[in-house]
Amino acid sequence: MSVLVVGSIALDTVKTPFGEATDAVGGSGVYFAAGASFFTPVNVVGVVGQDFPMHSLDFLKARGVDLHGLSVKPGKTFRWSGVYGFDLNVRETLDTQLNAFATFKPSIPDVYRKTDYVFLANIDPELQLDVLRQVERPRLVVCDTMDFWIEGKRDALLRTLQEVDVLILNDAETRELAEEADLIKAARRVLTMGPKTVVVKKGEHGALLISSDAFFAAPAFPTESVFDPTGAGDSFAGGFVGHLARTGDLSHETMRQAVIYGSVIASFNVERFSMERLKSLSQEEIRERFRAFQKITHFDE
Amino acid sequence: MSVLVVGSIALDTVKTPFGEATDAVGGSGVYFAAGASFFTPVNVVGVVGQDFPMHSLDFLKARGVDLHGLSVKPGKTFRWSGVYGFDLNVRETLDTQLNAFATFKPSIPDVYRKTDYVFLANIDPELQLDVLRQVERPRLVVCDTMDFWIEGKRDALLRTLQEVDVLILNDAETRELAEEADLIKAARRVLTMGPKTVVVKKGEHGALLISSDAFFAAPAFPTESVFDPTGAGDSFAGGFVGHLARTGDLSHETMRQAVIYGSVIASFNVERFSMERLKSLSQEEIRERFRAFQKITHFDE
Repeated sequence: MSVLVVGSIALDTVKTPFGEATDAVGGSGVYFAAGASFFTPVNVVGVVGQDFPMHSLDFLKARGVDLHGLSVKPGKTFRWSGVYGFDLNVRETLDTQLNAFATFKPSIPDVYRKTDYVFLANIDPELQLDVLRQVERPRLVVCDTMDFWIEGKRDALLRTLQEVDVLILNDAETRELAEEADLIKAARRVLTMGPKTVVVKKGEHGALLISSDAFFAAPAFPTESVFDPTGAGDSFAGGFVGHLARTGDLSHETMRQAVIYGSVIASFNVERFSMERLKSLSQEEIRERFRAFQKITHFDE
Repeated sequence: MSVLVVGSIALDTVKTPFGEATDAVGGSGVYFAAGASFFTPVNVVGVVGQDFPMHSLDFLKARGVDLHGLSVKPGKTFRWSGVYGFDLNVRETLDTQLNAFATFKPSIPDVYRKTDYVFLANIDPELQLDVLRQVERPRLVVCDTMDFWIEGKRDALLRTLQEVDVLILNDAETRELAEEADLIKAARRVLTMGPKTVVVKKGEHGALLISSDAFFAAPAFPTESVFDPTGAGDSFAGGFVGHLARTGDLSHETMRQAVIYGSVIASFNVERFSMERLKSLSQEEIRERFRAFQKITHFDE
């Protein structure tokens, strides 16, 4: 089953303690598509400027990612610039130039309107809702957001959440959205806002999957070689939604596997700058790390 | 197999957002003994003042904890006073009165000298080493410490660690001891200091078990009713060492179970003030929560 993603396509300039990359391809839509492409066909809706190096997405096309929903607008591509210190959990945004993204109004191509799986990447919640108005009711709507929208467009976000099945947030966003300091209580409060399931990303501490009657806790893969955390959350979402679409199964058991696949993809993604690691990643490496996750979490009765 | 613990016995005055307790029985030796007592006989070595309400330890005696190593000294008992805010991960010490504990020189009774399992609770590393000089080589030496000793008695601590099999630390202590910000790298560096295994306690984020050739990650039990975190680490250690002593098996697989049992005991302990929850806890509740841990961490291939 194919997945529709609506999100940003960006050129990122990133500095970490281990090096830097200039105008590297990034953005939530691209990281998600790269992650999901290992599992299922992906349709991308987004916008770039005339300066965008289209060849940089050739590796996605080669994996069956459909880029016909990508429109090219006059002017420049969305640019983000940030720096990470030795605590890679904390990043500082140096510069954001919305450029072509500033007037982005997602228009879903007719051929994408019957999509069973939709991922609303981190964009204005009004645009997220607009996307849902353009598609026939999907089997599964998965949504991401961030502090910027929680603080600045709370009402619009709450309207969007009414139509969302799975909300993916980090721990700070979960607390902020719920206005509750205790993370478990906060996640349960988010379940009263529309989503039937909440996935809480905790970075180096792993992820939680919480619904009204089920709870799953996964660690992060214990990597010692985090190089560039950019895109970890979106590539996680790619693996998560990709596995659900591949199996066509939305049971809690399959969602648990999906959390692990998301963690696997994210753990590879952070090993190199930009898309470098996801470009070279193989199915066998994904399977191996999934099995490694089983080994590090298993215990007998 | 019985366990020998050498640690503090205290009267704690604790304030949390949910209430307060005055002069409640506490201390690392007591929390450890209470946790381990569900699994195995425990011998306690420690000191109290003449004001100590001995009847407050009756529940331990009833569970087979041997208190003959507890000496009563003139003067008052060690007192600690602290307050927790809504972020229960952070506590502020208001007052510490060492009293009888100030001159504590652990003297191991002859009947305890042949002990297979020894837990060196968080006391001066010179005293920890002195305890090991008084016992025949145990099968397993497990040790706790804290920032105070890492900073103030680093050389003595490093000497003690040479004789330690398993070191139990929290994440901040692991980073500080190893002088390394990355937690996984830090834990691996601690493995070069003597211990064959490191257990890293991460509070609400669970625990890691790391040895040179094995890695295990466990979440915390997703409780929404943390009431008083005092003693969480020591009761964790009690469950951990208690399970190892009960089974007599020091394999990595059994250590994984031990981490889960430690987490189970700690998760109960924080549900009430002081020893209240561990007093009323039953074997059946422990088994149930162990199974709940399996449910929240399991995923299929």
